Amino acid sequence: MHIVITGAAGFLGQRLVNQLLDRGELNGKAITRLTLIDQVEAPRPEVAGIESDCLALDITVPGVLDPVLQARPDVIYHLAAVVSGAAEEDLDLGMRVNFDATRALLEGCRAHGLAGTRLIMASSVAAYGGDLPEVLDDMTALHPQNSYGTQKAMCELLINDYSRRGLVDGRVLRLPTITIRPGRPNAAASSFASSILREPLNDEEAVCPVPTDLEMFVMSPGKVIEALIHGAEVPRADWAPFRAFMLPGITVTVAEMLEALGEVAGAEAVSRVRHEPDEAITAIVSNWPARFDTAKARRLGFEGDRDLREIIEAFIRERS
Amino acid sequence: MHIVITGAAGFLGQRLVNQLLDRGELNGKAITRLTLIDQVEAPRPEVAGIESDCLALDITVPGVLDPVLQARPDVIYHLAAVVSGAAEEDLDLGMRVNFDATRALLEGCRAHGLAGTRLIMASSVAAYGGDLPEVLDDMTALHPQNSYGTQKAMCELLINDYSRRGLVDGRVLRLPTITIRPGRPNAAASSFASSILREPLNDEEAVCPVPTDLEMFVMSPGKVIEALIHGAEVPRADWAPFRAFMLPGITVTVAEMLEALGEVAGAEAVSRVRHEPDEAITAIVSNWPARFDTAKARRLGFEGDRDLREIIEAFIRERS
Repeated sequence: MHIVITGAAGFLGQRLVNQLLDRGELNGKAITRLTLIDQVEAPRPEVAGIESDCLALDITVPGVLDPVLQARPDVIYHLAAVVSGAAEEDLDLGMRVNFDATRALLEGCRAHGLAGTRLIMASSVAAYGGDLPEVLDDMTALHPQNSYGTQKAMCELLINDYSRRGLVDGRVLRLPTITIRPGRPNAAASSFASSILREPLNDEEAVCPVPTDLEMFVMSPGKVIEALIHGAEVPRADWAPFRAFMLPGITVTVAEMLEALGEVAGAEAVSRVRHEPDEAITAIVSNWPARFDTAKARRLGFEGDRDLREIIEAFIRERS
Repeated sequence: MHIVITGAAGFLGQRLVNQLLDRGELNGKAITRLTLIDQVEAPRPEVAGIESDCLALDITVPGVLDPVLQARPDVIYHLAAVVSGAAEEDLDLGMRVNFDATRALLEGCRAHGLAGTRLIMASSVAAYGGDLPEVLDDMTALHPQNSYGTQKAMCELLINDYSRRGLVDGRVLRLPTITIRPGRPNAAASSFASSILREPLNDEEAVCPVPTDLEMFVMSPGKVIEALIHGAEVPRADWAPFRAFMLPGITVTVAEMLEALGEVAGAEAVSRVRHEPDEAITAIVSNWPARFDTAKARRLGFEGDRDLREIIEAFIRERS
């Protein structure tokens, strides 16, 4: 079992690598080779019996993945992306990284005859927007109101078509907003959804740029990684007729997030969150829906978090 | 008022040109210039007061439209496309013409600062597919099961994003299956929807490749042209938040089409239709939905046909 991961040095990529190494197998087969790709070289895993290549590559350069695809990997996790805030600021960069590189990857799979390779891409709740119903389901249209969501929605369509044509075995998981991400704030418009919990838990100040009654659809990093693993194991036929759907997040308000923070870490933690409304961020994230009937994901065995408390406690546990 | 039309030598393009020349104005402004683009040179309209350029161009060649866009047209009708059957047979050709050329056109509008130019593109019922509800509406997801529909759906997303960003004033109309097209059968999977009426009305034999209980969502050429004209006249703000929707076709079965043919042209006309099931065509078109609540189109003032009889009688009238 040879697994390729793009965006491998990123937060999800690193966590996925560690999970795969812990398991030692995927879909019932021993992992023998990992190819980790990112703009910077990912840390080299040192595990007996697993050959690792850590490649610093610009995946927007034509043909750059050819040597990797020539090795005929069994599974490709395509996690590399320009995040929502950055894609909104720079249309060309977003198109190049989020769309063109995905298309080139699909073309590479086609050129190398990787019809059976499982290609798992992360899409996003940001692909939804417009005049949305109260509760969304698997047949709700993607009318993105930001360029990141547009690019992801286009990738979904392309991956679905290449898969339908039998050129690759594509699978797309729309991720809810992830909380609690470790590390520092980033350029994602949803960065605050982690900051307002993470920083106070680390005895630091955080800024909340949105109204507290804002609803979000969230998932913990742990459940996202479980979903990525499961996404490689669900049989091919189960994904048709459209190979992209929303994962089962949970619906929470910002107020509930702060309340759960208080329950787990006390009122002082909550007081570290400063409320400074940011219209640009609020405009983007208030367009992201928060209530879903994720029937397809559940039918295929994907699971979400139980509640916010569990999410916060997992973060504390993993941090230590 | 300077109007550019791609695919201008095609059936819709020619009919649109004639309608525009008849009207002499669009959106309350006199038409002073027409730029007609196609792979082959379109017939040159000879009308006093209207400057016409007929250009034989391959719109997939980078930069080929620069001189046209430099003239800062007010309206662009983007009708050029590879039809569904051909796009299914040749993925590369479909991607190049249906997607890449549209993207290049958007980039051209951006580069030339055509923020106010109204760009009207024809999309298609073929963009729908998968596990569809009984009646579709404006929020039904596009899960295309053919490459043509995939490419059109991707263009819709891109046009919407460029319009949302204020780079162009894009408008996309999803066309129902058009009947009755004049001329000969073509490579579109839906070609029969015209053939089974047109050929018998011309005293010729036709082949019906689908079961007679197949439902289709259809619109006459006349109503499609009216919609293209109207599409340039609806105010910009009315198109947000998502600038693509289905036009108000009518729902008919193949049996009803043949029945209406009999009513207008007699039983002998109906007897000229030979039933020869074709699995490939049936597989494609049976995935196209036939029942829609086209609320947005109606709200914006788009109109459909009254019934099949009217469609057939219009064809006879226009033919003579």
